[in-house]
Amino acid sequence: MARAHWGCCPWLVLLCACAWGHPKPADLGGQDVRNCSTNPPYLPVTVVNTTVSLTALRQQMQTQNLSAYIIPDTDAHMNEYIGQHDERRAWITGFTGSAGTAVVTMKKAAVWTDSRYWTQAERQMDCNWELHKEVGTTPIVTWLLTEIPAGGCVGFDPFLLSIDTWESYNLALQGSNRQLVSITTNLVDLVWGSERPPVPNQPIYALQEAFTGSTWQEKVSGVRSQMQKHQKAPTAVLLSALEETAWLFNLRASDIPYNPFFYSYTLLTDSSIRLFANKSRFSSETLSYLNSSCTGPMCVQIEDYSQVRDSIQAYALGDVRIWIGTSYTMYGIYEVIPKEKLVTDTYSPVMMTKAVKNSKEQALLKASHVRDAVAVIRYLVWLEKNVPKGTVDEFSGAELVDKFRGEEQFSSGPSFETISASGLNAALAHYSPTKELNRKLSSDEMYLLDSGGQYWDGTTDITRTVHWGTPSAFQKEAYTRVLIGNIDLSRLIFPAATSGRMVEAFARRALWDAGLNYGHGTGHGIGNFLCVHEWPVGFQSNNIAMAKGMFTSIEPGYYKDGEFGIRLEDVALVVEAKTKYPGSYLTFEVVSFVPYDRNLIDVSLLSPEHLQYLNHYYQTIREKVGPELQRRQLLEEFKWLQQHTEPLAARAPDTASWASVLVVSTLAILSWSV
Amino acid sequence: MARAHWGCCPWLVLLCACAWGHPKPADLGGQDVRNCSTNPPYLPVTVVNTTVSLTALRQQMQTQNLSAYIIPDTDAHMNEYIGQHDERRAWITGFTGSAGTAVVTMKKAAVWTDSRYWTQAERQMDCNWELHKEVGTTPIVTWLLTEIPAGGCVGFDPFLLSIDTWESYNLALQGSNRQLVSITTNLVDLVWGSERPPVPNQPIYALQEAFTGSTWQEKVSGVRSQMQKHQKAPTAVLLSALEETAWLFNLRASDIPYNPFFYSYTLLTDSSIRLFANKSRFSSETLSYLNSSCTGPMCVQIEDYSQVRDSIQAYALGDVRIWIGTSYTMYGIYEVIPKEKLVTDTYSPVMMTKAVKNSKEQALLKASHVRDAVAVIRYLVWLEKNVPKGTVDEFSGAELVDKFRGEEQFSSGPSFETISASGLNAALAHYSPTKELNRKLSSDEMYLLDSGGQYWDGTTDITRTVHWGTPSAFQKEAYTRVLIGNIDLSRLIFPAATSGRMVEAFARRALWDAGLNYGHGTGHGIGNFLCVHEWPVGFQSNNIAMAKGMFTSIEPGYYKDGEFGIRLEDVALVVEAKTKYPGSYLTFEVVSFVPYDRNLIDVSLLSPEHLQYLNHYYQTIREKVGPELQRRQLLEEFKWLQQHTEPLAARAPDTASWASVLVVSTLAILSWSV
Repeated sequence: MARAHWGCCPWLVLLCACAWGHPKPADLGGQDVRNCSTNPPYLPVTVVNTTVSLTALRQQMQTQNLSAYIIPDTDAHMNEYIGQHDERRAWITGFTGSAGTAVVTMKKAAVWTDSRYWTQAERQMDCNWELHKEVGTTPIVTWLLTEIPAGGCVGFDPFLLSIDTWESYNLALQGSNRQLVSITTNLVDLVWGSERPPVPNQPIYALQEAFTGSTWQEKVSGVRSQMQKHQKAPTAVLLSALEETAWLFNLRASDIPYNPFFYSYTLLTDSSIRLFANKSRFSSETLSYLNSSCTGPMCVQIEDYSQVRDSIQAYALGDVRIWIGTSYTMYGIYEVIPKEKLVTDTYSPVMMTKAVKNSKEQALLKASHVRDAVAVIRYLVWLEKNVPKGTVDEFSGAELVDKFRGEEQFSSGPSFETISASGLNAALAHYSPTKELNRKLSSDEMYLLDSGGQYWDGTTDITRTVHWGTPSAFQKEAYTRVLIGNIDLSRLIFPAATSGRMVEAFARRALWDAGLNYGHGTGHGIGNFLCVHEWPVGFQSNNIAMAKGMFTSIEPGYYKDGEFGIRLEDVALVVEAKTKYPGSYLTFEVVSFVPYDRNLIDVSLLSPEHLQYLNHYYQTIREKVGPELQRRQLLEEFKWLQQHTEPLAARAPDTASWASVLVVSTLAILSWSV
Repeated sequence: MARAHWGCCPWLVLLCACAWGHPKPADLGGQDVRNCSTNPPYLPVTVVNTTVSLTALRQQMQTQNLSAYIIPDTDAHMNEYIGQHDERRAWITGFTGSAGTAVVTMKKAAVWTDSRYWTQAERQMDCNWELHKEVGTTPIVTWLLTEIPAGGCVGFDPFLLSIDTWESYNLALQGSNRQLVSITTNLVDLVWGSERPPVPNQPIYALQEAFTGSTWQEKVSGVRSQMQKHQKAPTAVLLSALEETAWLFNLRASDIPYNPFFYSYTLLTDSSIRLFANKSRFSSETLSYLNSSCTGPMCVQIEDYSQVRDSIQAYALGDVRIWIGTSYTMYGIYEVIPKEKLVTDTYSPVMMTKAVKNSKEQALLKASHVRDAVAVIRYLVWLEKNVPKGTVDEFSGAELVDKFRGEEQFSSGPSFETISASGLNAALAHYSPTKELNRKLSSDEMYLLDSGGQYWDGTTDITRTVHWGTPSAFQKEAYTRVLIGNIDLSRLIFPAATSGRMVEAFARRALWDAGLNYGHGTGHGIGNFLCVHEWPVGFQSNNIAMAKGMFTSIEPGYYKDGEFGIRLEDVALVVEAKTKYPGSYLTFEVVSFVPYDRNLIDVSLLSPEHLQYLNHYYQTIREKVGPELQRRQLLEEFKWLQQHTEPLAARAPDTASWASVLVVSTLAILSWSV
């Protein structure tokens, strides 16, 4: 897919939300960017001519009496990855970066995007488009106020603005004598016409029972029970996020890159189940699985996807209260429900329930991580042999690890675009190699692999950083401090219901101590054959409190601009901790099973507790992955595993620090003004 | 002051905001509570008869056509401590606890308060009053909806509801056909009449230049410069918090218990300075100091305190934009400013500027802490001699430490009600002893002292916990884990602009490890002869990011219900940290100078780094406080200081943990399925 060539590394987009700062744009070699200040302007071959489509869009705007039209970068479900037919902003501007909003007025057209994409935008946009480098609704509204006349109308597609984003625009425009106008027909789509890629239409299938934690009937009953217990007694729950509907009915498809979802909404009422999707995509077996021929409270009525807004509006006429998760509901749904009939939470009950995996789901996710470790270990063994030959590059490497994953049982493709980055490329926030543009792997450089798989039983995500030659002392120190951060957070014992935000600094302390840090978040939830970045679990301020049964990644890093990048990412299950005194405490159980690179560990920086933890983890890896490698007769890999999980030697206790205490104390006694 | 007998320990009120959980109410011995279910009801002597005042209040409500009237527990400036004439809720209900809201309808009267005060409320309220145990606006509104008829009006004094609280009531009542009605004349005051204590009227005085960081002219220019740089170009800043006006003009008085403030507002515009206060309270020297006889941009025009609402309303008629900090502005001011003329931030520019102390303010605050340490050390020495005699109780002890502080230079009284708690009392969230009700100090129990002073140069706050006999192993372990928490946070190196919330768990980790914790926050800002709890600095989620020049307390604790309480509190300055690799990093410099109790430290739990930190701190105490004790010829105290700051012995390195690593490793090698 074209966009993958330019796409931002997906989890970094997510984690950068906190603060990556302003990483320098990728040095893609021989940047060829537009120059609109010459006459005629200079336009590289990568630029898309947008004059015709912009003229057509302005005609549509005129018909609607609009002074401006907003074109966001999202789809109607806040998907992390969006389908090609939803790439409206990319199509109208030429700029294919995954983040950026376009606004068109009758005279001007502009794009707002962050520093990761500035160079890319200058390479792809023609001179019809201004590039603005501040992001957020405020700079867009500030620009609008100077560009459109008082009394002007600003059009938008209400299915492409979240409630929050709409409120932000609305607030900023208040009192300005400019009005936001919701137009349900997307004007870009009208112009795009037959060129627009079709909406996916592959079959929607039910997961085998072996791969589900509960039946859809159990899940429906669970949500209804939450509705009954809710103080505001909602009569229905509306699900807008695709992962919500997929989870609820144990249904999957492949409409979205990397996510096994299908376009859908669900309106689950106290007496009915209404699934909005394309009915022709269900086989008769699946229809029967859903009890779709009846109309009782345990029968799934399938209604057309395009009818959702009208159906919600009609339902809202009754004596009802509709429970929504505001984070995933678009303004196009929100605006048709009277405020007094809304029951709002940040996340829907499905989102909250899904975050805590039951014991079967835990076992499934763990099992997928064992097989995933086999694929990654096969790749690392292969690299160890082939990198010294000078025949491996980032792109061919990424293809190979994807291939190894594909050979694992229950595999269903990668869970995000593989980040395969050598040397200085690993320090870039949004790097993924392409067939055309990549770097050779070398024994003289560090190599970072951040990748994951979709399996019927679980979704995986793991990052390892390796060096096959002689790393510098600084590289070893940085790697070891990242490792200490990973260990310190992984082994932390904390009270039940602690929020991730309160503890994520434990993953940073060893780096901070030396004046080092990383600019992304520390982890995210993960699903059972669902999203690789499954909200609302994680370590960011808008994540919910940690609870037993949640899975989260733990992934500190360190990035040296222009030189190298380190990230050590594991997925961990939140489990009960045994403490000396009784109490409700939690800790993490790491379920990623690939050893760290011994070549990069400076053992002298590790405390006895770190070593003890690490050797225990290595023992677990041997126990979990060893038998699987043996069973598969992957004997070379098994040997490699044994070597790389040898207990790390406990060095003689470092008496230096004790000596310094004694020296300080003695000096103190001698010199203090006693 | 009567309320002090029942008042909640002030900083705990503040810190409990996060989560103390539900501590059991104080066992005050022989609880004598009302019983409204008997006929006639049983009422203890501590109950106040409120029938007459309630009848009179209802008459006032009828005149205003109100179905209900809300009586909050705050004053017009969100003061932490409130004056007696502002204790409306206490007067109308009889219940004197510092937290709790009353609502009166034509038929019923009710109080909502948290678990700390349930017993106290049952002892003080007569049967006119219902006690409700859930707090927040939601349960109040839920009750109101059943108690007052549709169409009913709910009256409130707009100067007693913050903007946020008003919005919360307003939101909850929306669509309910009940209306909030703002009535600027307080109905309780009308009923209270001549019985109401008078508003304080002592002189308002200017601080000597030696005790101020900048002149008021410099501060005014600084705020105006921020107004000019602000994107929304405010024409004025409105200051509602008393500490804001006190800080801006370097003025002080004693209207508020423990806080040297006076009732006031300031409207600082681009061309004028309007100070709303009682003019008769300024001496001619102070008026001259304020340039109050002129009207230019650097002349302070004093206007009557009661005129503030009308004056703001009149000013808001012009082409102006008024900058407010929403956290400290009451609805009574907010409602008279048109929304489009408001420039809002959570905290005013004065609050934000005041949070960062300049070098002179830092030196002043540090100097006050040296003298404060002298007072606390004198008290600890005295206790060591007198507790074994059995003649000291919590109350007489508190009086003595207050007296010692009073003897220090520049003393201006305690900065909050001294918490002097022995044995099980120290585990109570809101304990302060009274003359009538207190516990004897004993060599068999731990003793917790949390106290502070106001000095012209600074405000102090320190907690030490001691044991003069043989503490249990658990007491020593808990104390040492609290100490480790204090040390781990104090010595933490973290990036500039990190929020306290992100790092406060370092003060908890050593406790968490063993299944222990504490239910209050970890620290708060502190002022220069201002608030002992100075917002917005601290470790809570609504505190601002840490910056060089801020002062905060660091105060982990541990509380064992019915047995003992431990808290170790120091005040620390945020300073630049030197890191191995260059970067903008901060750490803390502790400025409280009283040694911890060696008798309670289990050295075996401390790492070499902890000991090194501790011995360095003790050396600093010797250097700072030693000479002061010698100068004052406090030779016994000097000797005590030397003994208690002897470097703690570095025990031989604990090889046990290394051994365990080796054992684990060896066992692993032997037993793993290789």
